[in-house]
Amino acid sequence: MSEPPPHLRENLSLFERSARVIPGGIYGHTSPAAGLPGALPYFAREARGCRYIDADGRGYLDFMCGYGPNLLGYQNPEVEAAAAEQRARGNVFNHPTERMVELAEMLAGKIDLADWAVFGKNGSDMTTWALQVAREHTGRAGVAKVVGAYHGVDAWCTPGHGGLIPEDRAHVHEFAWNDLNQFRDLLRQRGDSIACVFLTPFHHPAFAPSVLPADGFFAGLQQICAKYGVLIVLDDVRAGFRLHSGGSHRRFGLEPDLACYCKALGNGYPISATVGREELRKAASKVFLTGSYWNNAVPQAAALKTMEIAARDRVVEHLERLGNLLAQGLSAAARRHGFDLRRSGPPAMPFFHFAGDENFFLLQAFAEAAARRGAFFHPHHNWFLCAAHDEQAIEEAIAIADGCLAELRQVHGP
Amino acid sequence: MSEPPPHLRENLSLFERSARVIPGGIYGHTSPAAGLPGALPYFAREARGCRYIDADGRGYLDFMCGYGPNLLGYQNPEVEAAAAEQRARGNVFNHPTERMVELAEMLAGKIDLADWAVFGKNGSDMTTWALQVAREHTGRAGVAKVVGAYHGVDAWCTPGHGGLIPEDRAHVHEFAWNDLNQFRDLLRQRGDSIACVFLTPFHHPAFAPSVLPADGFFAGLQQICAKYGVLIVLDDVRAGFRLHSGGSHRRFGLEPDLACYCKALGNGYPISATVGREELRKAASKVFLTGSYWNNAVPQAAALKTMEIAARDRVVEHLERLGNLLAQGLSAAARRHGFDLRRSGPPAMPFFHFAGDENFFLLQAFAEAAARRGAFFHPHHNWFLCAAHDEQAIEEAIAIADGCLAELRQVHGP
Repeated sequence: MSEPPPHLRENLSLFERSARVIPGGIYGHTSPAAGLPGALPYFAREARGCRYIDADGRGYLDFMCGYGPNLLGYQNPEVEAAAAEQRARGNVFNHPTERMVELAEMLAGKIDLADWAVFGKNGSDMTTWALQVAREHTGRAGVAKVVGAYHGVDAWCTPGHGGLIPEDRAHVHEFAWNDLNQFRDLLRQRGDSIACVFLTPFHHPAFAPSVLPADGFFAGLQQICAKYGVLIVLDDVRAGFRLHSGGSHRRFGLEPDLACYCKALGNGYPISATVGREELRKAASKVFLTGSYWNNAVPQAAALKTMEIAARDRVVEHLERLGNLLAQGLSAAARRHGFDLRRSGPPAMPFFHFAGDENFFLLQAFAEAAARRGAFFHPHHNWFLCAAHDEQAIEEAIAIADGCLAELRQVHGP
Repeated sequence: MSEPPPHLRENLSLFERSARVIPGGIYGHTSPAAGLPGALPYFAREARGCRYIDADGRGYLDFMCGYGPNLLGYQNPEVEAAAAEQRARGNVFNHPTERMVELAEMLAGKIDLADWAVFGKNGSDMTTWALQVAREHTGRAGVAKVVGAYHGVDAWCTPGHGGLIPEDRAHVHEFAWNDLNQFRDLLRQRGDSIACVFLTPFHHPAFAPSVLPADGFFAGLQQICAKYGVLIVLDDVRAGFRLHSGGSHRRFGLEPDLACYCKALGNGYPISATVGREELRKAASKVFLTGSYWNNAVPQAAALKTMEIAARDRVVEHLERLGNLLAQGLSAAARRHGFDLRRSGPPAMPFFHFAGDENFFLLQAFAEAAARRGAFFHPHHNWFLCAAHDEQAIEEAIAIADGCLAELRQVHGP
């Protein structure tokens, strides 16, 4: 963009300040460099339900939900009340509180494979710890993962390149999603040195459509793992509790040995969790796990309430229904203007792309136009729905999309 | 302990519940297995100022401050108000907020080496990232650290043993604290393959007295590092903002290239930070850094207010003064009963031990007796003071200690 649009003036001015005192200005998954520089908002000011206001004071109908944490709506009153009640007693102590025990009990009751649970702050905390537990249990160093799958920012799996050394990935072996033959070959060659395989419940890379597990992929993989004594670690950090109330593996018939959760668990309060089978309890107790704030009682209280509400309000079903309405509405709007807009991935976490739009130029133009018109549509990442989305919000999104598509047709249209 | 004391009945009953659903019942640095099983509280219920109540409803005058985060007192009203103000706008978004920029600007203004800052949730997030930045900048893999120094739970530095593989520590080289000759020899042999040396501002291992930097240690180390182009990373996670308002290196005359903070920064709100020199900005921007909640605005608002109050109220000086009163009072009480109780480390983070008490049996008996009498004295870790400690609290602690020492004299005394 040659000239920054006036509606982002404050965003860009704040970014100038930021770039002086923060390398790159904004780092990580919210970096504008990873999005559309000069087109989407850079900084947020406040949020409620399924809407937020950016640094320029402009409102957005949101379809990213903070990249996942917002399951029930920003500032859900019941979650905030539960958090406030615990906060009045305290958050950080010399010891954990009863909230930690209650949350572990709740997850053990909710998730079939969970005979125990532990808690961290971030997805990477848990995926890396789960890898170490698998190594401790099996006495093996190797780990299998899917090409392009994101499991966090730790050295063994980060999508970044800076600061790495060869040893970081010495025992990491990749295979293609849904390619059972490749996985079988990998284990034939190295099965007795592989501790575990990491799997997301469906394949959700950035910059590419999502791919559900093919018929028989998980069942076949499960058989091969059993044969070689390789553990299955479910990385449900991104999808957990949006696709099935008992964990996303239930939706696709996978039976993992360990599973990691984060995003939706605390409705924005910082918490992550790993659960596992009884057989892994001993190894789990041997891999040192701690952090300054990992016993924080407020996020644990928030997670207890979030999970309670999600079950009571059948949030998974709500997201599925609205996600289907959204996809149908967007596709129909696209067709009206001569475009072929497709959804991949589950309805609650849709990835949208235009057929044939290999470089995502059209999708980027769509997201840019939507931002101008007051909706945040991500240009290369799956979107997220939350319980605060209702039919009116979906209709509004479709109407905004309709305007964007009419505009796109002038420039890019068929 | 054969029979658990009745005043811990609820603590122990909750631990039984916990042990069913959490490996080891309580993990990490708050594990009772690492303390005195059956003697100190296991679970907290609420806290305020410098006091907390455990799961049995018993009150403790606290000298651990949540292992550091509590700098201004549990539930400091001004920090809570600042956090609440931000919380009313939101915490997690699709983007960072102005709070992130303000906090980076504040640290850049406060800390001499800070030309930039980034934020995480936990100490380990930052120490490991700093190592990667040093590797990126130097193109070297090696890291030097002090034997027994704690830099977090990541594989290259965890004090744990479970789940590790040889590659995790392939490039980690240790030397003894204050041993300049050993460090010089290490760099003579490997200087051109070492990216950085990690240093805490003083040596604060668990299960051992703290040791301040010897005269000339930091200056000599600095010279050697300059000669070999080795970066200095200050791990100020535990001590930061308790010893000097501009970072603990200022107290001891160290000039690090990167510095990591956590504990005291947010007064219990989960946040950590790394700051660095301009020369490292480019490398810093190349090492991917992110987490689901790392842009959380509430802990950033809490950190801004915490640092503002700490400067306004000259908290560093307050802690120093009260820490000296505490050490003098405890030592005098010990002398009255024929014991030689010594403080090591800075007054604000004292490590207490009895002369000749090699196995810490006496210190453990002291901590056990103190817990019965309503004070939490840690049996093998440095203690922490906070701004909510006043002269009355110190006098109360000394009176409790006096009672404990009289009791100890009956059993263990001279």
